[in-house]
Amino acid sequence: MEEPTQHRPGRPVRSGIPEHGRIPKYYAVKARLSLLLEELGEGGLLPTERDLAERYEVSRETLRQALRELVLEGRLRRAGRGTVVAGPKLEQPLSLASYTEGVRRQGRRPGRHLIGLEQFPCPADLAPGIGAAPGEPVWHLERVLLADDERVGLESTYLRVARAPRLDSDFQPDSSFYGYLKDRLGISFGDADEKLETVLATPREALLIGTPPALPMLLIHRFSRDQDGRPLERVRSLYRGDRFSFTTRLRPE
Amino acid sequence: MEEPTQHRPGRPVRSGIPEHGRIPKYYAVKARLSLLLEELGEGGLLPTERDLAERYEVSRETLRQALRELVLEGRLRRAGRGTVVAGPKLEQPLSLASYTEGVRRQGRRPGRHLIGLEQFPCPADLAPGIGAAPGEPVWHLERVLLADDERVGLESTYLRVARAPRLDSDFQPDSSFYGYLKDRLGISFGDADEKLETVLATPREALLIGTPPALPMLLIHRFSRDQDGRPLERVRSLYRGDRFSFTTRLRPE
Repeated sequence: MEEPTQHRPGRPVRSGIPEHGRIPKYYAVKARLSLLLEELGEGGLLPTERDLAERYEVSRETLRQALRELVLEGRLRRAGRGTVVAGPKLEQPLSLASYTEGVRRQGRRPGRHLIGLEQFPCPADLAPGIGAAPGEPVWHLERVLLADDERVGLESTYLRVARAPRLDSDFQPDSSFYGYLKDRLGISFGDADEKLETVLATPREALLIGTPPALPMLLIHRFSRDQDGRPLERVRSLYRGDRFSFTTRLRPE
Repeated sequence: MEEPTQHRPGRPVRSGIPEHGRIPKYYAVKARLSLLLEELGEGGLLPTERDLAERYEVSRETLRQALRELVLEGRLRRAGRGTVVAGPKLEQPLSLASYTEGVRRQGRRPGRHLIGLEQFPCPADLAPGIGAAPGEPVWHLERVLLADDERVGLESTYLRVARAPRLDSDFQPDSSFYGYLKDRLGISFGDADEKLETVLATPREALLIGTPPALPMLLIHRFSRDQDGRPLERVRSLYRGDRFSFTTRLRPE
């Protein structure tokens, strides 16, 4: 839903305007572009920068600032040589269910692309969260997350090699890791602590996910425990901020 | 916790580097600055841009790009004429408890500063979420959120005037709205649906919160129901992405 203050009579773009009343030029253009995007609808092709700069009587630089924000916010996306109106963000529930299930619920096809699976000696600060002794071998499984073949995130999972000794030979890296733990090893989840924040993608992450480097990302840190309450895994999941939102239902404590 | 891949022997900054091995110059500077920040510790004053550019043998522009990202990520903050190492982000639990309680749990002093309290006719798209008829009077309560007198967010609450007819005379705008609903009107919360996403602050929001306009923010949309399951309020809460993270505990469904 749009910000309701935008609907007040006589105050079409008030929600974005400073109290002192001076509207930055790029923001006035962004407000007009915003209306244009609604008219064009999802997948609609945006006119060229030259045409838009002429239409709104602003410099190309001012126009680009407005377009840049609309891209960062996921309302526009670059497609081939043009720019089109983006679809709504994916709404992923915050739950113990896997990424796979969350994406399927929205009628999208989940996928994963393996970046790396390797062992390394557990660093001291990772050890308590996964129930490992410092220096003991741990797995690092790193995968790009896909939705309808679009790269939307990057996921790193850490767990003790002792919990899943044959991960490198038994596990199909494009399948659900949680499915593997359950079906092959009889491990299911007790609970998990999650922390969400917004970060900027590093150059490596931006390259792997295929985003501009300055794009704000949603980062979720997960520490999960198995059905016996023992620390199981740490997961670091990075999602494109322009493509994802997260939902949850809160109940009294 | 830092990204564990940074701790692997012989791979000090690997987590930020593209697979093809070319490290953007600004990012190499950022990685070195990152170590410097750890040495300086919270509140430590950063050397001048001129000194740092000389020390790392890069242009001022390259240095500024690295500093800008560290500011956007909340690892540095501008203080008077200098730049200092920022403290850790506030960890706010996702819960039905109020902002006030969440901030207090972290040993900070919560506060709120009134921007506006006004009535307006309910727009059609806001109506179902708060159980209103389109056009009936609704309150819009807008407040800046403070932690230890620092402006950290902006909160807009919408509810039917019929639910709290004397809000403009009875309510202390720097106190807890949830406390008011409970103590004065006997309204308590049943449950709420929340959606989290990252957005860019509008010029007006940036001015009210005192952030740079391009700063990524965390936006939480809340739709809550009262103890009888009736729609109660819609809240739009915007938090500085460099100052806040959100935590939750997940349990099997």
